[in-house]
Amino acid sequence: MPAAGVELRSEQLAFLAGLQHDRATDPRIGELLSVLEGSDLVSDPTSVPAVNVREMRYDYERDTRMPRALAAELARTTALAHQEWVAARQDADFTRFRPWLDRIVSLKRNEAEAIGYTREPYDALLDEHEPGMTTADIAMLFTSIREDLVPLVADLRDAEGQHSDGILHRDFPVDRQRVLAEGVAASLGFDRGAGRFDTSAHPFCSGIGPGDCRITLRFRAHDLSEGLFGVLHETGHALYDQGLDPAHHGTPMGEPASLGIHESQSRLWENLVGRSAAFWEYLSPRLRDLFHETLPDANALELFRAANRVGASANRVRADQVTYNLHVIIRFEIERGLIAGDLAAGDVPAAWNEGYRRYLGITPDDDAAGCLQDMHWASGLIGYFPTYTLGDVFAAQLFAAASSELGDLEGLMRRGDFRPLLDWLRRTVHRQGRRYRGAELVQRATGRPPDPRLLTSALRQKFGELYGL
Amino acid sequence: MPAAGVELRSEQLAFLAGLQHDRATDPRIGELLSVLEGSDLVSDPTSVPAVNVREMRYDYERDTRMPRALAAELARTTALAHQEWVAARQDADFTRFRPWLDRIVSLKRNEAEAIGYTREPYDALLDEHEPGMTTADIAMLFTSIREDLVPLVADLRDAEGQHSDGILHRDFPVDRQRVLAEGVAASLGFDRGAGRFDTSAHPFCSGIGPGDCRITLRFRAHDLSEGLFGVLHETGHALYDQGLDPAHHGTPMGEPASLGIHESQSRLWENLVGRSAAFWEYLSPRLRDLFHETLPDANALELFRAANRVGASANRVRADQVTYNLHVIIRFEIERGLIAGDLAAGDVPAAWNEGYRRYLGITPDDDAAGCLQDMHWASGLIGYFPTYTLGDVFAAQLFAAASSELGDLEGLMRRGDFRPLLDWLRRTVHRQGRRYRGAELVQRATGRPPDPRLLTSALRQKFGELYGL
Repeated sequence: MPAAGVELRSEQLAFLAGLQHDRATDPRIGELLSVLEGSDLVSDPTSVPAVNVREMRYDYERDTRMPRALAAELARTTALAHQEWVAARQDADFTRFRPWLDRIVSLKRNEAEAIGYTREPYDALLDEHEPGMTTADIAMLFTSIREDLVPLVADLRDAEGQHSDGILHRDFPVDRQRVLAEGVAASLGFDRGAGRFDTSAHPFCSGIGPGDCRITLRFRAHDLSEGLFGVLHETGHALYDQGLDPAHHGTPMGEPASLGIHESQSRLWENLVGRSAAFWEYLSPRLRDLFHETLPDANALELFRAANRVGASANRVRADQVTYNLHVIIRFEIERGLIAGDLAAGDVPAAWNEGYRRYLGITPDDDAAGCLQDMHWASGLIGYFPTYTLGDVFAAQLFAAASSELGDLEGLMRRGDFRPLLDWLRRTVHRQGRRYRGAELVQRATGRPPDPRLLTSALRQKFGELYGL
Repeated sequence: MPAAGVELRSEQLAFLAGLQHDRATDPRIGELLSVLEGSDLVSDPTSVPAVNVREMRYDYERDTRMPRALAAELARTTALAHQEWVAARQDADFTRFRPWLDRIVSLKRNEAEAIGYTREPYDALLDEHEPGMTTADIAMLFTSIREDLVPLVADLRDAEGQHSDGILHRDFPVDRQRVLAEGVAASLGFDRGAGRFDTSAHPFCSGIGPGDCRITLRFRAHDLSEGLFGVLHETGHALYDQGLDPAHHGTPMGEPASLGIHESQSRLWENLVGRSAAFWEYLSPRLRDLFHETLPDANALELFRAANRVGASANRVRADQVTYNLHVIIRFEIERGLIAGDLAAGDVPAAWNEGYRRYLGITPDDDAAGCLQDMHWASGLIGYFPTYTLGDVFAAQLFAAASSELGDLEGLMRRGDFRPLLDWLRRTVHRQGRRYRGAELVQRATGRPPDPRLLTSALRQKFGELYGL
């Protein structure tokens, strides 16, 4: 957007937020829900009508507790803050963003008070993105993960350098990378006739609705990882969106369960499929065909090792599978402190750098590479980051359950037969819509409640073997 | 959009059309307008409040006469028809599009009946795009233009081949064409801080509102015309949008007067500036700098001649300045016949080819190159084409008036000083918003009612000289 357009944009978004609030909080919705809640239709709590009524009630209550003026003000402020964040990051000047962060935190605290919570205001914000999960649940999970990963990262740091990833940094013409990416998406099960690919500054996936799911990617000529792991990740999101039941479109039974569950799908395909030895056995002959001049010698093991190079860096989006969740945990701890009032906006850079020092043993070069790297806070997304790591926890558990049910999942992947895994996810996750909360969905799919040790022990095993720990 | 997404899109658009209808026809608007219409505020009919009340009443009456269900049905049908048109054009298979055209014509006839008209139903459709103008007005203008242009095209056909445009078809690297295009837009007065440039399949300009006006372009490596005349045309639209008074944004006084007036701005900058000898004198040293390998020898006269090569072709968008309006007249005659019921959808290909034979002396290779080339009818845009030629009529007259008021306009253009012309247009056209209907706006700006002979005599003079007629 041109710089001069931000005022109009912020007014438009505030206006739309008001309209949306009017529609979502129409008292008629509450009356109709009350009628349904007293009917036989909802007697089986996991039936389609009961789920729809329960979830519509959940949305309605949340929306009606949110003041209309606050919804509009948040929309207006975050539109303006986004532009200030862009400029602040460009100049690595946190002081420019600080008053906006301060204002957003204050509005989000107002939101939390309006929505209500039992133990701490952050609960109210988290619940928007991961319904049913509390701050205490997250803190417990994250403490466990942190206590496992910090020593693992330290161990790997000493072992680091063992495998070079130079093979992924040769010359890869972008047009052929695009052919590769689209082919990989199709082989995983993406329905191209009901979707499309585009290029953007940051990859994302938009599930518009039945028949229309769009993936954006970016490529770098000297880095195969950027485009390849981008398409694996976004295809994971897309397969979930394309797997929602079109017959339930527009109702909770046709919607994703939570952000954590959504992220479990992207992380599963990106990491548990895409960074596995089996996947690289499948992929390497294809790579040799496509990039015969660049990779005449590509062998699966070398590529697999290169794709799993570990090293602490300041950047979350490009982080490896092991360090990634520590980036998320640092953000969670800071935003929880901001919302609790234990931390002021001005304290963020120091808290950020201290987190990176303690958990990853590094210090970002400046605030652009540090606390200004993500757009989430500028967009008012507080309580969103934890769902990234929740996604990893859910993914590890779902993948383990799928493996034991499907038998030789590794063999299937080696042969490029991803259909059984997709079918399993379709049945246990995609087609369930919002029938269960995230944690319950995982429990029903896998037979046990979410357990972070499955994630961390799998990481220690995989990377311990790779790095000879 | 992916093929499978069209059903959802059509439902969404129909839903939005219904919502929009509800808001636009809220009886409260009518009540408030009645109060205002009885007040002193509107005593001076060209004052800002009087114009706003008059034009809001015009919109309100039109909107309320349109049945809600018809508005939704048109949105739904045209979304589906667009996709069928794409496929039909791809296969050069008019029969695939015929039932959709039939359905759209029938809906537009219903619309015309609902809106009301005095002489013929087409009036009602035309009035949406060019308020105040009747079918009879257009027919009279177009007859005059056709009678002047058909013989001129025939004369030029015999003289054709005299100037080669090979110089515009050398190797022009697209990245440098982009630099040229953005530089040209800026030199004409486009405010880049309040706008941006992108690439698209077909160039267009979107005036989002104050501070945000976007131009899209396309480039061809071996055709300088495509990108250059594209940017000249779209910048003309953009200068109008950027010239609307931001203090009146959201009210008629801050809106364009009509499509004909909008097109007059794009055609004026594209043709009367961009295809003038003076402009090429200004541009040629810049071209030599940018494309020093391609155009070391470029001289202004040769470039000017190349930019004014005339030749009948089947394609409207790429037509030259002389033949362009005959393309438009053919479309007007056909769509007028469709709405009057004199022509059936199935008659269109024959009527089209007959029009091209009579007015341009050519026959399109197939329906893809013929009656399927434009997306307008598939989008329900009937009564829209005439505004293209109206734009040319208005542009010729505005440019002549500006020339005589500004004195040495040619000299200004030769020196690249476009500001006086822009300021003149700002004052006489842009800042007037919807104060006057298109024809009256032109009359007030130029001192005489729209006269098509100004357009055609200027064309005969310019091309007569160029081609030695």
